[in-house]
Amino acid sequence: MSSEGTSSSPTNNAHKPKSEFIKQETIHREKWLSLEKITYKDPRGKIRTWETVERTTKPQRPGVADAVGMVTILKRLLHYDCLVLVRQFRPPVRSCTIEFPSGLVDSEETVAEAAIRELKEETGYVGTITSISPVTVMDSGMSASTLNLVFVQVDGDDTVNQRPVPNLDEGEFIEVIHAPLHELKQKLDAYSEAGDLVDSRVYTYAATLHQCQHKGEDMDLEQQKGLYKK
Amino acid sequence: MSSEGTSSSPTNNAHKPKSEFIKQETIHREKWLSLEKITYKDPRGKIRTWETVERTTKPQRPGVADAVGMVTILKRLLHYDCLVLVRQFRPPVRSCTIEFPSGLVDSEETVAEAAIRELKEETGYVGTITSISPVTVMDSGMSASTLNLVFVQVDGDDTVNQRPVPNLDEGEFIEVIHAPLHELKQKLDAYSEAGDLVDSRVYTYAATLHQCQHKGEDMDLEQQKGLYKK
Repeated sequence: MSSEGTSSSPTNNAHKPKSEFIKQETIHREKWLSLEKITYKDPRGKIRTWETVERTTKPQRPGVADAVGMVTILKRLLHYDCLVLVRQFRPPVRSCTIEFPSGLVDSEETVAEAAIRELKEETGYVGTITSISPVTVMDSGMSASTLNLVFVQVDGDDTVNQRPVPNLDEGEFIEVIHAPLHELKQKLDAYSEAGDLVDSRVYTYAATLHQCQHKGEDMDLEQQKGLYKK
Repeated sequence: MSSEGTSSSPTNNAHKPKSEFIKQETIHREKWLSLEKITYKDPRGKIRTWETVERTTKPQRPGVADAVGMVTILKRLLHYDCLVLVRQFRPPVRSCTIEFPSGLVDSEETVAEAAIRELKEETGYVGTITSISPVTVMDSGMSASTLNLVFVQVDGDDTVNQRPVPNLDEGEFIEVIHAPLHELKQKLDAYSEAGDLVDSRVYTYAATLHQCQHKGEDMDLEQQKGLYKK
């Protein structure tokens, strides 16, 4: 076995022609969002522009994203391990969504503090962090929105977690969902069929777990044909 | 073991008070993006507003998202299985990103057709689809942006895939990365450390795979302390 054939590594890009950021101008700014125009130079030296949107509340600290999203596993005696998810109406998509508990990082907080606080507020659970991702991008073709993924375990047998009480902001209406890991993908598909929209990171998590759990099971021909239906 | 304790199911929400979409107004429209204001009623009957952004090119077909993102596994004899990723400068985040190959769905295409076409254009590979997600949301607190995740296998030993030649649009500058699955997370962390931004779905995929591969290995105390550093 060999792992060559990778076409690049993180360190060998120095000699290549690069795109370069030139400037950013505000086209229209509202209270929470700002429509911006970015001017940049492409690797051939051509000047180009790109429309983008930014949160007006964006933190400007290295390693700290706009928001934290908590991949939260609830462990309890005599129960299957569950992923803790939240369901809420999201005006931008005019629908209820199924997402990781999440929230914006306040200006005086670390990523870890924001994660523990937001998880407690949205679900009532007190969690323990197992790892934190680097700053990742949410939708980099469209916006400057960024996320730190925070991996959290909740000991459901601990007394602090036995009657979890969320502490929602005024105007937040959030339902907590416990989805057993062994049937996560099926459960998300059921929510989708019922009209909810699943977050793309939650779906990726479920599909990857499903792939690990069901390695080697292939799709039947009927399913394959269905993929190309107009 | 029991799987009760789930606080809801997709079908038992009918009786609960719901948020309701009322209207959407354009605040400022540019060529590609439009800043919008949504008015909705919360479950207590209070009228509220929410700022959001939308692509002006958004398809309005059920089951079809704005974009497709291809979770692409390259399989070759005598090589480790690799995830095929793309690296490119993304003006909204002023940086290079590591993402799944992706693209917008054209108006006359199915999701499957868009996925196969975009994968070929961006990477040169001819793939076979194994499954397609429902419409998922990209960043539902901020935008109406949606994505169909498309799971694809590429037979790297097939002659059509032995010298893959991308066919990029004018203005697209994309580098193809082959990341072996057994070291995916480490590789992404290296790109992050070198200054690139990893897409949050790609990171979720890698972290979940890593979790499946390294079940039971716990973080040491030094790492745990590091999480709370300011």
